[in-house]
Order: sequence, then structure tokens, then C-alpha cells
Amino acid sequence: MAARMQRRWLIADRPLGRALRDTDFRLADAPVHEPGAGQVRVRTLFLSLDPSQKGFMENVASYAQATATGDVMPGTGVGRVVASGIESLPSGTLVRGELGWQEEPVIDASRLTLLPEGVPPTAALGAVGMTGRTAYFGLLHVGRVQPGDTVVVTGAAGAVGSIVGQLARIAGARVVGIAGGPDKCHVLVRELGFDAAIDYRSEKVRTRMRALCPSGIDVLFDNVGGSLLDDGLARLAPGARVVICGAIARYNADPRDAAQLPPGPQNYFNVVFTRSTISGFLVQHFESQYVEADRRLAAWHADGRLKSLVDVIDGFEQAPRALMRLFERANVGKQLLRIEEVTA
Amino acid sequence: MAARMQRRWLIADRPLGRALRDTDFRLADAPVHEPGAGQVRVRTLFLSLDPSQKGFMENVASYAQATATGDVMPGTGVGRVVASGIESLPSGTLVRGELGWQEEPVIDASRLTLLPEGVPPTAALGAVGMTGRTAYFGLLHVGRVQPGDTVVVTGAAGAVGSIVGQLARIAGARVVGIAGGPDKCHVLVRELGFDAAIDYRSEKVRTRMRALCPSGIDVLFDNVGGSLLDDGLARLAPGARVVICGAIARYNADPRDAAQLPPGPQNYFNVVFTRSTISGFLVQHFESQYVEADRRLAAWHADGRLKSLVDVIDGFEQAPRALMRLFERANVGKQLLRIEEVTA
Repeated sequence: MAARMQRRWLIADRPLGRALRDTDFRLADAPVHEPGAGQVRVRTLFLSLDPSQKGFMENVASYAQATATGDVMPGTGVGRVVASGIESLPSGTLVRGELGWQEEPVIDASRLTLLPEGVPPTAALGAVGMTGRTAYFGLLHVGRVQPGDTVVVTGAAGAVGSIVGQLARIAGARVVGIAGGPDKCHVLVRELGFDAAIDYRSEKVRTRMRALCPSGIDVLFDNVGGSLLDDGLARLAPGARVVICGAIARYNADPRDAAQLPPGPQNYFNVVFTRSTISGFLVQHFESQYVEADRRLAAWHADGRLKSLVDVIDGFEQAPRALMRLFERANVGKQLLRIEEVTA
Repeated sequence: MAARMQRRWLIADRPLGRALRDTDFRLADAPVHEPGAGQVRVRTLFLSLDPSQKGFMENVASYAQATATGDVMPGTGVGRVVASGIESLPSGTLVRGELGWQEEPVIDASRLTLLPEGVPPTAALGAVGMTGRTAYFGLLHVGRVQPGDTVVVTGAAGAVGSIVGQLARIAGARVVGIAGGPDKCHVLVRELGFDAAIDYRSEKVRTRMRALCPSGIDVLFDNVGGSLLDDGLARLAPGARVVICGAIARYNADPRDAAQLPPGPQNYFNVVFTRSTISGFLVQHFESQYVEADRRLAAWHADGRLKSLVDVIDGFEQAPRALMRLFERANVGKQLLRIEEVTA
């Protein structure tokens, strides 16, 4: 009897120093396997799309596992156990983990986690997942936000940015989001409770910042880099904390080639006059504190104070397209790919 | 009877957005006054030259008192009391303070301090003065240097840099200095005990850094900015502290004009992968801890572990020239102007 087949997306080329292309990915069939002892077979329901995935393909990031062309595209997702070789994860269980871009992978149970109690799959990949943790540790631990602070977030309508703004409000801070286009700005203020939003495409960012942050910026949470970072550095309050989380403006450059990288922040020297700090972090640095963060994020999500803003694309074959949306800055909230409707 | 006259240097023009010129200064005569109650008249012996003085003339720095053309050029110095209106500072006393560029100013005694016990005037303006304090707080408090750290200092043969390197050694760290030219590099290693020096004029800085800092840079103490800062950012160790103290590469630009400023540090994003921080400070932020710093700096200076490297130009009329040397990167160690020999 011929093996049943599943589809997988493979890495076909390294997008180093350029934008992603369709030809960087290759859709391939592979046999569906039975799980061994301690393993489960999972049907993938949702995949998370993250800018770091381009870095994984480029294979230059020191913090990620090496990849090669021909490998299954790495990626986190939520799936349902459909065949189990371990009692603790019976068929039907929803799990989260590094599933890769494959429809029906077999995974070691030790590499999967249950979804937090009462958290739907979309939130488990967003506000109450790695995205939420990134916002949480970046704003609270690295940015050390305080009640009354003025927080400015770039990429505010993105996955992390949309959470950072809401956490800033929960922490008693004022928050100004910077995003591209009136629709995104509308969502920030009307749906997520940001105090104000600046549309960098149509507004003069520095002029608006001056009006909206009359005492300066206490926490600048940067997901973008480029001129928006420079605009923020020009308006720091004394003792400001600048949190470098992302730099969507850089991700199409080869980081080893200065000629490709966008200009650095000319206003970095303002940290001297304002005795400020610019700090970088990776969420993995806080792994020992995930449990506490998850508990708090899930509670805020449950009581409605933390909304999970998601941008869902349908269809396994759309995975590369969904990833590309991040670099086109098209996504509003967390970019997800839905492979199959979740039925309870 | 005609009043006795002294000479003073006045600000004649604002050097904003350009290098200093001779015509920015004007030498003028002014009458010598008698001190009132609580005042002393001082004969200026040494003046300290500091890059921040150009900023004072430009009148754009928020942290400094406003100046106007026609004002006496501000500047710190050491002088000897020659007429006193206060018992606590009798004639003959050596004092340190904001004397301005004038040969025989009358100053409120409350604005002057005695020289630390056993510290000669040159060191009182250098290793055991504001320069020493800047190095001390920048390296120990902002940079949080630890025994075994690898410290890299840019502008290492400058006033602050030459102290930073010695303090790093005292703290049990390895220190690599970056300076321009073989003479400066020789001084760092042979006279001041640096572990190594890189001549940025003739050597490939990144290649040398890789060889000299195989485990990366734990503390990067930057007095220069520009490409040297970028080179250091490319080589940070995990958890590195980057201390922004100066940026001689920027001081001839108008900070409000992006077109004039040198490029920002393209490699700033490495703080993410290395979970590092870039921190600015002004020594004034640590004013409450000056007493302790002075005590320790004076002790290290007294026992010969902290050398005061000074570059002395003679003659009151040379004051503008002495200041310009800083921006030409001509000085080796602390730049001082000697107006009169000190006789004990």
C-alpha cells in the first residue's frame, strides 16, 4: 500500500542581502509517518510568521540553528495530535511547538507544549505566545516601564508592537504608536487603546512627536530602525530607555556588508545628554521567566485587557506569501497562516 | 591712578557646524579688580582644554550655561590666590574652579575648591580632576567593568581615554587602546600599561580587534564615534556595555542638521544578538559621588598606579590654539595651557 502523502515547504535558496522571492521556497510532497514511542503526529492548524524566519534561511544569525537548502522551512505552529505514541498527549490534544512548514509532521512530545488554559490557537501564537513574551520582557524588564512614563512604539501595528502598546497601558504609561497608514493608526487608538498614533507615511513624525511627547520619551520601543529610530532618539527624556527589538528596515540587507545596511542612527549621541541607554535583547535571554510571563499574559488576555490582533492568511500553499507580507509591512497585528479551521 | 590691566579671551563668534577659527576668539584687556567680601583674586596658572568648550561657544548644549559673543570664554583652571576677601583662602592658596580664560579674575570663594592634598595642578585638572572623574564614573559605574573583562577604549591617548585604560588595569581588566599614530600607541603600552594598542591610521582595526579580543569586547568606551564605534559594535561580547563618552568625530557638525552629522553606527543592532547596552552619561550626573571618586583617584595617583599624561602648551595668548589641538587630535593626554610656572 502506498504511503499517504503530506505537503512540506522546503528552503530552496538563501535570501541573504535581498528581499524574499517565490523561488526561495519549494513545495514538496513527503510521506506521512507513524509516530514512534514518545512522539506524536500533528495536523498543523496555524503557523506563526516572524521576521526572524528570514534570518534562519540566511543562516548568518548566531543564535539560530543552522539551515541548509533542502531543509524543511522552520516555523512555530499550533496543531492537533492525530496519532500518538505517548499517553500524555492523546489524539485530539492541541499543541504548540516548532512544527516546521509541514502539514502533518511527526514530533517528539518533549518538544511540544500544551496551549495555555483557555487560550485559543491564534492567541497562543500571538499575545500569549512568543510574541507576547517578547513584548513583555522587552517593555517591562529591558524598558523598565513605570506608571506615568511616555512610551513610543515603532511598528506599533505589528505583532510585537501591538502588544507593547497594550502592556504599556496596563503598566499605567501613556503610549504613542507609530505605524504606516490611517487604517493601522485607527486600529491602534480605537481597538487597542493607544493614547495616540502617528502615521509615518503622511505625517511629520518629529513635529507630531513634539506635540504628543512634550516631556520627551521615557521608553522608546523600536521594531523598525532607520529614520523612525533617529526621530525617537532626538526626543528622549532624561534617563530614557531605548529598547531595540527589531529592525524591519534592515532585514533585506546582508549584515556583513556595510554598503547594504541602512544608515545607523545619527542621533545616538543624545544618550549622553539625556543619560539614556539603548539596550538589545532576545526573548530567549528570559527563558527562565517564561512561566510567570505566560501566566500574566494569559490573565490579561482572559479579562479582555490584552487583545490579540491577528492577520490571518488561509491555505498552506500561501505560506511564503504570508511571510513576505511582514517585509512589505502589510500585516496588521500578528501574521498567521491558517491551514485548517479549528473545530472544537 | 589708572587701573592695572589683565588680558581675557572673549567669544567673538559661534563655531556651530564648522571647525574652530582664530576669529572665533578675541583677546581683550580689562581692569584688574579688588575682591569684595567672600571673593578672591586669582592669578591663573593652568587652564584645562576640553571638547565641551566648543559646545559652550555654540550655545546649543542643553546642559551648559548660555553664552553670548563678547562673553569671557568659559574654562576651568588652577590659580593662586593673590588678593583675598575671605579668611579661609589666604593669598598663596592654590585653587581650582571655573576661572574662565582670564589672567587675573575675581571669583566668589564658594565657587572654588582647594586642590586635593598632594596633587599637583596639572593632575588636579587631569587624572584627579573632572577628566579623572569622567573616566572613573564612565568605566566603573556606567561600564561596570569586572576583573577579567576585555576593555576597548577609543581616543585612548586622549585625556579621558588615557585614564580609562589605566583604571581598567587597576580593576583587573585587559585593555586595548585605539589611537592615531605610532607615537601615541607607544605611550599607551610603554608608559601607561595598556595590554595592546591599535593604530587606526595604519592598521586594519577590525582585523586587529579580532586578534586582540578573541572572546569579544566586554566594555567598549567610546570617545570618538564614527567608524571606530562601528568597528567595536561589530565585536561585542555577550552582555557587553558600550559607554558613550565623547564623539570627536561629530563636534564640527551642527547637531540639528542631519546632513552635517557623520553617519550613525550601522552595527547598533548587534546589541540585540549580544543583549548589550549602549549608555550615555555626563559626569555631572554623579556629582553626589565626587568625594569618593576624588579620594580613590588621588590615592592611585599618589602610589603611581595612575599616571597623569599631560600635553602642555605655554602662554596665555596660545589658548585658542591649545583648544584647536583637541579637534585636530594632536594632543597626547590631557591638553593644558600653562600661563605661569608654579613656584612653591
